[in-house]
Amino acid sequence: MSSVEISAEPQPLSSANARNLIDSVEAFLFDCDGVIWKGDKLIDGVADTLEMLRSKGKRLVFVTNNSSKSRKQYAKKFHSLGISVSEDEIFSSSFAAAMFLKVNNFSPEKKVYVIGESGIIEELELAGFTGVGGPEDAKKTADLYLDCSIEHDKSVGAVVVGLDRHINYYKLQYATFCLRENPGCLFIATNRDATGHLNASQEVPGAGCMVGAMCASSEKEPIVVGKPSTFMMDFLLKKFEFGCSKMCMVGDRLDTDILFGQSTGCKTLLVFSGVTTQSNLQDPSNHIQPDFYTSKMSDLLELLGP
Amino acid sequence: MSSVEISAEPQPLSSANARNLIDSVEAFLFDCDGVIWKGDKLIDGVADTLEMLRSKGKRLVFVTNNSSKSRKQYAKKFHSLGISVSEDEIFSSSFAAAMFLKVNNFSPEKKVYVIGESGIIEELELAGFTGVGGPEDAKKTADLYLDCSIEHDKSVGAVVVGLDRHINYYKLQYATFCLRENPGCLFIATNRDATGHLNASQEVPGAGCMVGAMCASSEKEPIVVGKPSTFMMDFLLKKFEFGCSKMCMVGDRLDTDILFGQSTGCKTLLVFSGVTTQSNLQDPSNHIQPDFYTSKMSDLLELLGP
Repeated sequence: MSSVEISAEPQPLSSANARNLIDSVEAFLFDCDGVIWKGDKLIDGVADTLEMLRSKGKRLVFVTNNSSKSRKQYAKKFHSLGISVSEDEIFSSSFAAAMFLKVNNFSPEKKVYVIGESGIIEELELAGFTGVGGPEDAKKTADLYLDCSIEHDKSVGAVVVGLDRHINYYKLQYATFCLRENPGCLFIATNRDATGHLNASQEVPGAGCMVGAMCASSEKEPIVVGKPSTFMMDFLLKKFEFGCSKMCMVGDRLDTDILFGQSTGCKTLLVFSGVTTQSNLQDPSNHIQPDFYTSKMSDLLELLGP
Repeated sequence: MSSVEISAEPQPLSSANARNLIDSVEAFLFDCDGVIWKGDKLIDGVADTLEMLRSKGKRLVFVTNNSSKSRKQYAKKFHSLGISVSEDEIFSSSFAAAMFLKVNNFSPEKKVYVIGESGIIEELELAGFTGVGGPEDAKKTADLYLDCSIEHDKSVGAVVVGLDRHINYYKLQYATFCLRENPGCLFIATNRDATGHLNASQEVPGAGCMVGAMCASSEKEPIVVGKPSTFMMDFLLKKFEFGCSKMCMVGDRLDTDILFGQSTGCKTLLVFSGVTTQSNLQDPSNHIQPDFYTSKMSDLLELLGP
């Protein structure tokens, strides 16, 4: 059941192929928003499904583009929802941003300006970098009406942009100055998701919204470290003794989760518990086809039977 | 001196071609930010140059992408700077947004959600439409941390996005909901300028920044009514008894002012008193060439001599 044997047409998950999938895969990679939870609400059957997979000796990892939390904060969230997950099973785009700087030998003498939330700042600090902006600039305003310009720090060598529910003009202005005026300043996007389910009922603007704003004002394109970029896969490959063909990416977004899985040679399972519907999948304008699709993650458990 | 006689290579303004230009043109179209003023500071020599042009019987119009003010507010600003300009000489992108709805028979029963400042709201109201959002949503927040979703008005039939120095997540979320969920909701951008000189010293993020954010979260592309869109030219042509070849567009941006002038068949004069430098103009990556260029608008006066 390697990728060449799978037909191009996505298959609905069935008892037979669910069993095959579980037998042939050693690690399941799960997106979180829209797969594990919506906002602070666990999606039905998730806990039992994860338990079943663990009982079969499967390795589990959680690969999330949501940069609002650090790995530590995500582990806490899992625990609060009654699921035991360790920090090193979590690969968040906040962690990826810090790791990108690390593997590219970014100087710890330089600062990192953040449009984003505390997750990014925490991961930067854990990696030995100094993150500025983010939550501390949530209330700042440049009083442009009084011709009051702002000063920006010339030692900022990178701007990291992620989801920021306290986005404001000051942050956009500060980051624009860094990218336009600090020579060689890196522009890193945690991800470019258009929207996400940050709460249970609504699809709200995602990091792509903030990244789109910064692309426009800086007239630059970012390096993306979250899905569908394959940057995080290097860390997963170091973690496991097997390759991507033994992994299955489970996600709710075609343009991030499924594309990430396909680009890295994983098997892919699309679930409809998040932002994508079956009619989105089957729309002629969609060219990203998963290996399998099903309504929600716990179908894996139900289809296996008792 | 019709456009076919002009060589493709831009010419520095000289005594000879400045005289020719003034003789051959009946209306001068001026951009404002970076041409007339920077923030609240008039650029040197502007008042005398405008006076000279008026004394020669030239028609003057001010075509600005800055949507923060209405025509009325702009006329006040001109007066406060000692320059007499009437409202109907001003074509702001705030006015253009309202006119776009008008000429497209947008129903006054529907509402218009605004990411932008008071100028857009004022022009919408003058045109008989109901603008919501904008300044009144400057302090609003959706408490996403408490899983608190927001309600949006299903009767919003258009979203207008312009420069908004009080941009916040609430506005982005509200406008995203309107564009994604209200069938047929129009997405209108006043303009897509990356940056602008809203104060005298710094190039700050322009409307393009807010438009980029909304394109990303709505996954839609806007109708642009400001420069370089030629939408406003129809109104200028109705105002004057002559055609575009008798007009000269004077601006500081290649991708808005000069492109607008060229697309409509005007003569074009680039000035370096705003966001564009001579090296930007001569950079091989630039493919927008004005007919003429000079350091600032008042060179027109100086080159004519006494």
